[in-house]
Amino acid sequence: MRVITLLTDFGLQDGYHGVMKGVIWGIAPGVQIADLTHSIQPQNVLEGALVLGRAAPYFPHGTIHVAIVDPGVGTHRRPIAAQLGVYYFLGPDNGLCTVLLEHARSQSKPVQIVHIDKPEYWLPEISNVFHGRDIFAPVAAHLANGVPLADLGTPISDPALIEIPQPQRTERGWRGIILQIDAFGNLATNLGPQHFQTTGNDVQIRLGGEVIHELVRTFGDGKPSELVALFDSSGMLNICVVNGNAAKRLQAQVGNPVEITIRIR
Amino acid sequence: MRVITLLTDFGLQDGYHGVMKGVIWGIAPGVQIADLTHSIQPQNVLEGALVLGRAAPYFPHGTIHVAIVDPGVGTHRRPIAAQLGVYYFLGPDNGLCTVLLEHARSQSKPVQIVHIDKPEYWLPEISNVFHGRDIFAPVAAHLANGVPLADLGTPISDPALIEIPQPQRTERGWRGIILQIDAFGNLATNLGPQHFQTTGNDVQIRLGGEVIHELVRTFGDGKPSELVALFDSSGMLNICVVNGNAAKRLQAQVGNPVEITIRIR
Amino acid sequence: MRVITLLTDFGLQDGYHGVMKGVIWGIAPGVQIADLTHSIQPQNVLEGALVLGRAAPYFPHGTIHVAIVDPGVGTHRRPIAAQLGVYYFLGPDNGLCTVLLEHARSQSKPVQIVHIDKPEYWLPEISNVFHGRDIFAPVAAHLANGVPLADLGTPISDPALIEIPQPQRTERGWRGIILQIDAFGNLATNLGPQHFQTTGNDVQIRLGGEVIHELVRTFGDGKPSELVALFDSSGMLNICVVNGNAAKRLQAQVGNPVEITIRIR
Repeated sequence: MRVITLLTDFGLQDGYHGVMKGVIWGIAPGVQIADLTHSIQPQNVLEGALVLGRAAPYFPHGTIHVAIVDPGVGTHRRPIAAQLGVYYFLGPDNGLCTVLLEHARSQSKPVQIVHIDKPEYWLPEISNVFHGRDIFAPVAAHLANGVPLADLGTPISDPALIEIPQPQRTERGWRGIILQIDAFGNLATNLGPQHFQTTGNDVQIRLGGEVIHELVRTFGDGKPSELVALFDSSGMLNICVVNGNAAKRLQAQVGNPVEITIRIR
Repeated sequence: MRVITLLTDFGLQDGYHGVMKGVIWGIAPGVQIADLTHSIQPQNVLEGALVLGRAAPYFPHGTIHVAIVDPGVGTHRRPIAAQLGVYYFLGPDNGLCTVLLEHARSQSKPVQIVHIDKPEYWLPEISNVFHGRDIFAPVAAHLANGVPLADLGTPISDPALIEIPQPQRTERGWRGIILQIDAFGNLATNLGPQHFQTTGNDVQIRLGGEVIHELVRTFGDGKPSELVALFDSSGMLNICVVNGNAAKRLQAQVGNPVEITIRIR
Repeated sequence: MRVITLLTDFGLQDGYHGVMKGVIWGIAPGVQIADLTHSIQPQNVLEGALVLGRAAPYFPHGTIHVAIVDPGVGTHRRPIAAQLGVYYFLGPDNGLCTVLLEHARSQSKPVQIVHIDKPEYWLPEISNVFHGRDIFAPVAAHLANGVPLADLGTPISDPALIEIPQPQRTERGWRGIILQIDAFGNLATNLGPQHFQTTGNDVQIRLGGEVIHELVRTFGDGKPSELVALFDSSGMLNICVVNGNAAKRLQAQVGNPVEITIRIR
C-alpha cells in the first residue's frame, strides 16, 4: 500500500488539504495519506524544509512527500518531482526539498529531479493559485499508481536550494540560533552533539540572558519549571522548561542566538 | 474503495470527529475517510455550505459527504440523506446542502432526498446532542456498504435551503460582499468573472476605503505586502495582500461590502 | 482491517503525529489510523484519560488506542501495553488508561497489562524524548500485525492510576466540578443522571453565581444565548449557552464547583 504525505501552510479551516485527498483518491483509490502538518507559518519555506526533513526518514521507502509552501504559485517558479534517495518529493522548486536532497546526497543515494511539465497528468483545469490541488495532488497520485518519474516531466539539474543556517565557531565554543519552536514552546537550535565534541559537556549554554550549566538526558531529569538543555528526538540541542513553555518564559523567537562556551573553572 | 468526508464545527480538541471514524469503521471497515474541516465557525451553516460546495467537486464520484453544523440537533429538524448529482450528502436539514443541491440541479443531475427515519441503521442508543456519532456516521457507513438511499428513510421534496448572498447591480458596476476569510487572511467575495463581463477589466475595486485598480493573475504578480485582487481557485474574486494578511490589514469581516465600478478616464 | 487511534498532547504544527503514522505504516501497511486529538493540554494526563475513555467505546473491537501525554518520557516510568476489555491500550504508565481500565473491570472484562520491555519490537534507535515514535508506534504496529500482547513485554499487575474527581454529597444535593471544557465552551461536569435520582429533576444548578432552574433535553429546547443544563453525549451534566460559549460567558475553568440542590418551594 503506497503512502503519500502532505505538508502545507494551508491551515485546517478551509478544507484545502481535504480537497487534495479527494483528487488523490480519485486517481489512486488505495493510497494511504498522512497529514504531516498544515500549520507551517504562511510562506515559511525554511520551516517547511526542516519539518519535512525531520519527518520523512520515518516513513516507508517509496513514500511520496508532497510539500506545498508556495509564495510563487502561478509565477514561473517550476513545479518539480524528485526521487531523493528512497523517497519521492513533489512541490514547488523553491528550496522546500533542501534537507531531503542534502540527506540523499550525503548518503550517496540516487537523486533524480524533473520539472513537472506534462499537463496530461494534471487536472484538466489549472488555477493560478492552487497548484496543490490542480498539479501536485494528481501527479502524486499518478506516481503512486506507478507512472515513472521520468514520464512526469523534463529532467533538471539545478533545483533551487535554501541555506540552512549553520552554527559559527567562536573563540570558546559555538554560536548557533533557534531554528524552530514547537507546540510545547521547546526551542530547537541548530547545534548538535558534534558541537560538543570540541567543548566537552562542561559547557555553559547562553540564551537571552539565561545561562544553563548542564545537559540533561530528558525532561524528567529536571525539576518542574526548570530551564534545561537536552538533545531532542532529531538529535539537536533544545532549550526547554520542564512541564512548561520555554518560548513564553524567555520570549524567545526563531533566529535568536544560542551560545555554547567551554566553562572555565 | 469508498470515500467518506467529514465537515463539522466540532473543533479538533475533544475527539468528536475521531469518534465518528470509529463508528464508521465499525460498520464499513474498508472506507477511506477524509477530514474536510472541523473548524467551521460554531453554528455557521452558511460557511459550512460554502466550504462543502467548493470541496465536494474534487472528490471521486460516489463520495459520501457528511456535514454537521447543527444548532438544531435533537429538535424536530430532520436528519437527511441525499443523492445530489454524483455525490451523497448526509447531515441536518438546515440548508448545509444548499450549494451541492443547486449545483446538481443546475446541471440537471439526479436529486433524491430522504428523511432519515429508520433507526435500524443508527446506533442502538441516540443522544440528543451528538447525531453525528449516533445517526449520521452509522448511516454513512451503511450507505458506503451499499444500502440503497431509499432504504434509509422516507422521500422528501422540501429540503431546507439557505440563501447564498448574491451581488447587486449598481449604476456603474456591482456590489458584492466578503463571503469568507481563509487562514491566510484572503478575502473571498461573491463576485466572479461574470460580473466583469459587463464592466470589463478596467475597473476599480473598493473595499473599506481602499481602492484596487487592477486584477492580477496570481500572488506573485504583485509585490510583497501589496494589496491585490485576483480570481481564486474557485473562480471567485479575492482581495489579498501578497505574502501578507488582508483581513488583518483591512480589519475586514465577513459581510463587508466590496464594490466594482467601471473606471471613467 | 485493523484500526489504531492516536491521542496526544503534541499539537498539530510540528509533524510529530504524522511521523508516528509513518512508523506504523512501515511495519503494518494496511492499518487504518484515526486521530482522536492531538490537542490535549500539555502534560494533562487527566484530560487525556477522560477524552480517551469517552471515545474508545465507539471503535471496533480490537482497536489499538495509542495515548501519549507523557511528562515522564525517558525517566523510569514504564511504557505499557494492555488489553482492557475489547480494546488495546498503549502508552506511558501514568494513569492515562484509568478510565478504560475501570470500564473493563466494572464489566468484568479481561484485563492484561505488560511492561513493554522487548526492544526487538521498537525502532533500532530510541530517543529520550519521543517514545511515541520510537516505542509506542512500532509496538502498536506489531500488535496490529498479530504479535501477541504477552510477547511485547513482562506482565505487571500494578499499573499507575489517577483519581477521577467524584461528586460529593451535600446536605441538599451534590457538589461536582467542571471536568472539561469543549471547543464550543460547553462545561462538562462530573455529575450524571444518578445524582438526580436522589434529588429529582426539581433542582437548582449553581455555578459561579448563576442559577439554572431546569434541565433541557437539547440545545434547541432553550432560546439562543440562554444558559441551560443538559446531559451530553456521554450522559454527563453539561452547562451550556445555546448557540454561545458558556466558558467565556461565565469565565469558567476546569475544577470550578457546580452544585445541584433540591429546590424548596
